[in-house]
Amino acid sequence: MPVSSQTAFNLEKYARQRIKQVDLALNKRLPSARTKPNTIHQAIRHSLFAGGKRVRPILTLASAEACGGGIANAMPLACAVECIHTYSLIHDDLPALDNDDFRRGRPTSHKAYGEGIAILAGDALLTQAFEIAASTKTVDRYSTAEIILELTRTSGSLELIAGQVADLEGEGQKLTLPKLRYIHERKTGALITCSVRLGGMSANCTPKQLKWLNDFGYNIGLAFQVIDDILDVTQTTEQLGKTAGKDQAANKSTYPSVAGLKKSKKIARELTNKAFAALKPFKGKALALEAMATYLLDRKY
Amino acid sequence: MPVSSQTAFNLEKYARQRIKQVDLALNKRLPSARTKPNTIHQAIRHSLFAGGKRVRPILTLASAEACGGGIANAMPLACAVECIHTYSLIHDDLPALDNDDFRRGRPTSHKAYGEGIAILAGDALLTQAFEIAASTKTVDRYSTAEIILELTRTSGSLELIAGQVADLEGEGQKLTLPKLRYIHERKTGALITCSVRLGGMSANCTPKQLKWLNDFGYNIGLAFQVIDDILDVTQTTEQLGKTAGKDQAANKSTYPSVAGLKKSKKIARELTNKAFAALKPFKGKALALEAMATYLLDRKY
Repeated sequence: MPVSSQTAFNLEKYARQRIKQVDLALNKRLPSARTKPNTIHQAIRHSLFAGGKRVRPILTLASAEACGGGIANAMPLACAVECIHTYSLIHDDLPALDNDDFRRGRPTSHKAYGEGIAILAGDALLTQAFEIAASTKTVDRYSTAEIILELTRTSGSLELIAGQVADLEGEGQKLTLPKLRYIHERKTGALITCSVRLGGMSANCTPKQLKWLNDFGYNIGLAFQVIDDILDVTQTTEQLGKTAGKDQAANKSTYPSVAGLKKSKKIARELTNKAFAALKPFKGKALALEAMATYLLDRKY
Repeated sequence: MPVSSQTAFNLEKYARQRIKQVDLALNKRLPSARTKPNTIHQAIRHSLFAGGKRVRPILTLASAEACGGGIANAMPLACAVECIHTYSLIHDDLPALDNDDFRRGRPTSHKAYGEGIAILAGDALLTQAFEIAASTKTVDRYSTAEIILELTRTSGSLELIAGQVADLEGEGQKLTLPKLRYIHERKTGALITCSVRLGGMSANCTPKQLKWLNDFGYNIGLAFQVIDDILDVTQTTEQLGKTAGKDQAANKSTYPSVAGLKKSKKIARELTNKAFAALKPFKGKALALEAMATYLLDRKY
């Protein structure tokens, strides 16, 4: 089914605008590269301004808009999720974890600054995320405490970190599909779901809207990682901006290695369709989210 | 001046009680060792329940009491600062940073669980600290946002992490005393000051009380690390529960190596006296804090 034809929304223009706004906001909120100690702030910026696709902050902003909210209220939370995402990449790329030398076509943090600074840069970004989130203007329904708890639960040892642990411990093993889904849901899906939910919360969304956003986020979050697995075997290092074929080289179970390439693509499509279905009740007010789901399914890197 | 004779307060009994209460609260708030994925929760508990002196949480509780507040309100923040302290130790002990094999007489996290899990255990504890802090019952004067910002500023790239970066970059160099103080203020002092301030905040302290606590915290925080430097050269590994003589072996500047042992002891005493002076306005209601300052000066490990 050609899901990409469902919307006429100009995502390219929308995303270009939003990326620009997110970059400006991040630049304003993060200490400059000249702030002492310079090294750590340079390292933070090396990873944070590396030409990332800003998928998560765009989802936060688009979710706020779907609920009738504005960009301004959602922006701090968009920045916070991007800080958490970047921290998790820096730490995950370390030799003791995924041991990656390249990310978005540039040397990873520890390659550029050494392992010590890379560990601290990740720590600083995680801390910064909570600083930004705590300074967010609250709305009627959701307190600062609830916003922070949304982020801590997502990033904590039962979600994001649980996924990284299970991923680390699963290396070299032939995992079952449910076990692999467990990892993907946590390592990638949790923060994507959280990005979407926080956008809604910043717009003072109703509990029902939050539920729809949650379902949408869960499905595109899982689809996102299934597609990442597929791209790892179908694309080149140059196309990806990070080392291709890494999963196989590391003897990592992936959707293609466990379920086959064809079935994996089918699963990604089905999850994306479920994500579309979750947006139905927004009655045409979630065009940007729809377009993002299509883009994430069809992307080539 | 025998500062230790200033109070007749029974610190041993007080600290024993408070440690028990803190341990109970931490145990209740942290996922059990059987929570999946087990490894990460075992690693977290390995470091968090390693017989630490609980200096920071005791300071939080004692500061709350000095301002007329109760233990219950202060306890979540006491737990939060201990989580941040433990995270910073786990990461600081990693081979890429201080490279320590022993801590409190036990193998450090990466020695017991491997570097990957140690990095993630630190990340999880930092996240957990904000989760606990966000679930703290607030008082009139201080919002959840202010509590979180107090913690993020302390732990961020301008304070705690700035200290670790400067420490890392200063290795092998002969530092000046002001530069060394810069490191100590941030790497150790900031979190101790924060522990004290948060105790006051949990007790709805007045701005004036917060200022007194801040001055007290600053001075004992700096004294604490000066004394740590001194103990590193005067005590054995067995006495310390961590590798003695490490600073010298790592070619690290310390108060004794820069200012000499005698002057360092004088500085520690002077800072402690300033800390006592900051407590004067509490008019006898800060006996536990006074006793802690005396203990920290006189401690042998």
